[in-house]
Amino acid sequence: MTHGYDPRTGEPVGEALAETTGPEVAAAGEAARAAGEAWRALPAADRAGVLEAVADALTAHAGELWRSADAETALGETRLRGEVGRAAGQFRLFAQVLRDGAYAGVVIDHGDAGATPPRPDVRRMNHPLPGVVAVFAAGNFPFAFSVAGGDTASALAAGCPVVVKAHPAHPGTSELSASVIRSALPDPALLGLVHGLAAGRPLVTHPAVAAVGFTGSIPGGRAVQGLIAERPDPIPFYGELGSVNPVVVLPSAVAGGAAALAEGFAASLTLGVGQFCTNPGLLFAPDDEGLRAAIADAVTRTAGGPMLSARINEGFEHGLERLGRMKLLAEGTPGPGPWGATPKVFHTDLAAFAEGLPLTAEECFGPASVVVTYQDPADLPAVLARVPGSLTATVHAADPAEARDVARVLTRTAGRLVWNGWPTGVAVNWSMHHGGPWPASTMPAHTSVGAAAIARWLVPVAYQDWPEELLPDALREANPLALPRRVDGRAES
Amino acid sequence: MTHGYDPRTGEPVGEALAETTGPEVAAAGEAARAAGEAWRALPAADRAGVLEAVADALTAHAGELWRSADAETALGETRLRGEVGRAAGQFRLFAQVLRDGAYAGVVIDHGDAGATPPRPDVRRMNHPLPGVVAVFAAGNFPFAFSVAGGDTASALAAGCPVVVKAHPAHPGTSELSASVIRSALPDPALLGLVHGLAAGRPLVTHPAVAAVGFTGSIPGGRAVQGLIAERPDPIPFYGELGSVNPVVVLPSAVAGGAAALAEGFAASLTLGVGQFCTNPGLLFAPDDEGLRAAIADAVTRTAGGPMLSARINEGFEHGLERLGRMKLLAEGTPGPGPWGATPKVFHTDLAAFAEGLPLTAEECFGPASVVVTYQDPADLPAVLARVPGSLTATVHAADPAEARDVARVLTRTAGRLVWNGWPTGVAVNWSMHHGGPWPASTMPAHTSVGAAAIARWLVPVAYQDWPEELLPDALREANPLALPRRVDGRAES
Repeated sequence: MTHGYDPRTGEPVGEALAETTGPEVAAAGEAARAAGEAWRALPAADRAGVLEAVADALTAHAGELWRSADAETALGETRLRGEVGRAAGQFRLFAQVLRDGAYAGVVIDHGDAGATPPRPDVRRMNHPLPGVVAVFAAGNFPFAFSVAGGDTASALAAGCPVVVKAHPAHPGTSELSASVIRSALPDPALLGLVHGLAAGRPLVTHPAVAAVGFTGSIPGGRAVQGLIAERPDPIPFYGELGSVNPVVVLPSAVAGGAAALAEGFAASLTLGVGQFCTNPGLLFAPDDEGLRAAIADAVTRTAGGPMLSARINEGFEHGLERLGRMKLLAEGTPGPGPWGATPKVFHTDLAAFAEGLPLTAEECFGPASVVVTYQDPADLPAVLARVPGSLTATVHAADPAEARDVARVLTRTAGRLVWNGWPTGVAVNWSMHHGGPWPASTMPAHTSVGAAAIARWLVPVAYQDWPEELLPDALREANPLALPRRVDGRAES
Repeated sequence: MTHGYDPRTGEPVGEALAETTGPEVAAAGEAARAAGEAWRALPAADRAGVLEAVADALTAHAGELWRSADAETALGETRLRGEVGRAAGQFRLFAQVLRDGAYAGVVIDHGDAGATPPRPDVRRMNHPLPGVVAVFAAGNFPFAFSVAGGDTASALAAGCPVVVKAHPAHPGTSELSASVIRSALPDPALLGLVHGLAAGRPLVTHPAVAAVGFTGSIPGGRAVQGLIAERPDPIPFYGELGSVNPVVVLPSAVAGGAAALAEGFAASLTLGVGQFCTNPGLLFAPDDEGLRAAIADAVTRTAGGPMLSARINEGFEHGLERLGRMKLLAEGTPGPGPWGATPKVFHTDLAAFAEGLPLTAEECFGPASVVVTYQDPADLPAVLARVPGSLTATVHAADPAEARDVARVLTRTAGRLVWNGWPTGVAVNWSMHHGGPWPASTMPAHTSVGAAAIARWLVPVAYQDWPEELLPDALREANPLALPRRVDGRAES
């Protein structure tokens, strides 16, 4: 049996749920596959309407949803209501993506029978992956990266059915989310839900599964990748495995106000009890006594909170042991409950940090960070280049020119660069990229947030000299769906 | 030492070349990485000019190139001259892709500080992968899928330096190709070349290598994937591993002329001594005595040829043993030389084929194919759905309506569908897709041929609230490069 637990007390909440057995996982995969037949055949405009109905359903049930999640995560009403809104917004964005039509990737090259050699007529478009998308939900976002999250929304948008492996930190919220979403789907089997660690293997190795989306730890991601390698047909693995999100404070930024910098850092560090993929785990700062004092002061005034689960809290404590080899700069107030975390910030200098790489840049999931002080900003690029890949990298500077060399390096080590801000918080829009070099993503060309996330679940098919009456509507000469196309090498608007 | 061999005689040709040692591979990787710094900083229009200079150089040296390849592959002047032309054409296409600008994937969402929560300004574009692209060259196309091939052209276009592991069947041609290409590059180190099986591991595990392109066998591909999994940072693996390319002949096509069908099949089957990734390895046909006789007649009139190498010939003989459990329908004239292949076509019925899956659909690389006869076309879809993924699937029918159910299945099992034609021969254009479900491709969302092949070597970076003076030109508000963009959700032309 599996159970949600109240992080404020460590006591079980809600009903106990059975862990899904292997045969049950197989049945969920098969049911999703079967339901997917009609779903993939549905015109994109109709799928868009369904996605909007899902968004409406999530919004209508926001009250139940946030309460269920709060009981299992202790993240609080404001955050959780906001997150339900974000989840609904993601479904709406993918409805827009479908109506826009560029996702279909229509490219047409007309043939020329008189050419030497004769040129065939070739027309390419994107189809949904031929099968089920398996999603491993994250613990830290019970809505936006879970059952109602971006992987589910983008896969359904693409035309694929989904089976989600619930995160053990919020099984009840996962069930409730699934039931709300299913109420708006034409067939409830389009969204399967399985529970328990043992459900991972039969899900990943299910013959109907065509790709895996994963948000979790590096060891977890490597384990899933290993299972995929065992398949007779290894399938694509879109994993987001960890990120240390370096923030670089340049001297001109300190001149502009150490206190504001310190406040911003402390707030970003402790948001959601530090349980953000984009948490600022490294802060590079000038060796400035005043700045360090300001940071120490701001961090001391922070309050910790209950972490999501005993396991996540254990991981945090384990990470703190590693960080504890460095000097503790400051700590906040301990969080309540059995899994309460205390925000902690450590300090080291650039030379020691560089010598300790890659260990010194390992993610410690939770409200902990390392301030790495430097004497000369010219020493930064070589060290930053050796920090493993991140979802984000941030630069603080009053003078852009000062940031040029640092920025050049960071464009290669992170998927999103933030200027004079903080990495926590990800806009869901057309331009967002939430990915980066390993371990931020196993597929650095793809994003798990924003409109482009749909591309993970699409595959092109080229039709050569194919008869008009058998072509998908999207590829017909007269363009009945009014899709954006590239024809004979030129983009049509 | 490694050596090219003349397939007509089995005798060594050209000079013996040393196998590249581990330290030499490391040095080639490092030299390519270093040369890549200036290359990735070059404006795309300048890179386009270099690609065109490479195309000119290949064309200018076509005579030497085809002669070198003919001595090592026995593929003959017409085919090899054509292939040099195709290789040059690929470099030209990617120059066009760079000038077109859509590859840069520019998307801009303007910020709104007054929104709740405030909306950041986010601008995304594609950058070259931060490192070297390692390419494992194919044996069967000494130019188009080798040193001068599409992987090299697309990676250089993207802005990445390349190190190619030469195929052992044509080391001399690989050296010559590299030297011709380097003569047109601003820095010869942008294209490294290594030889020998033992060079694979140090290349794939080289820290500067950011992605691998591979054309070869399933076991070879699995081995490379295993090496990648050993890396501290597993990198993307774009492999094309095998394809059986089913051809489905429907009854209405037979009525239209069995002899022409049989001739087309025999010609496609024996093109390049059957050594095409798109070779038609399975032909589904009505149980029609006349058609079988026509196929037998056409195949009997084919001539085999020398295969590329002893090893490829061994693999072919091994595959024939497996196929030999079926009835031999016809064979052609044996090819000359020690590795001469004899075209062979076997016959089985749909029930026996289905029962033997997946073994009966395993690729036998070379001029061999299986004719699978059926009684009722309605039985085809269920069986076709179980044939492993292919680069292509072909349908022959006089009446499109007759093909509807078969086509629906094939869109899920192949990357390119061909109507009333033959799969060998791949157009290099904007719309081509050369990929498909495993084992056709390890990354079914990507293609190794055509304009979209550049996407394998690009990664997006999003710039959030980034100062105009630090933005890449491609992302500046005024659009100085006149790139196609999506701004605030709408495509600009």
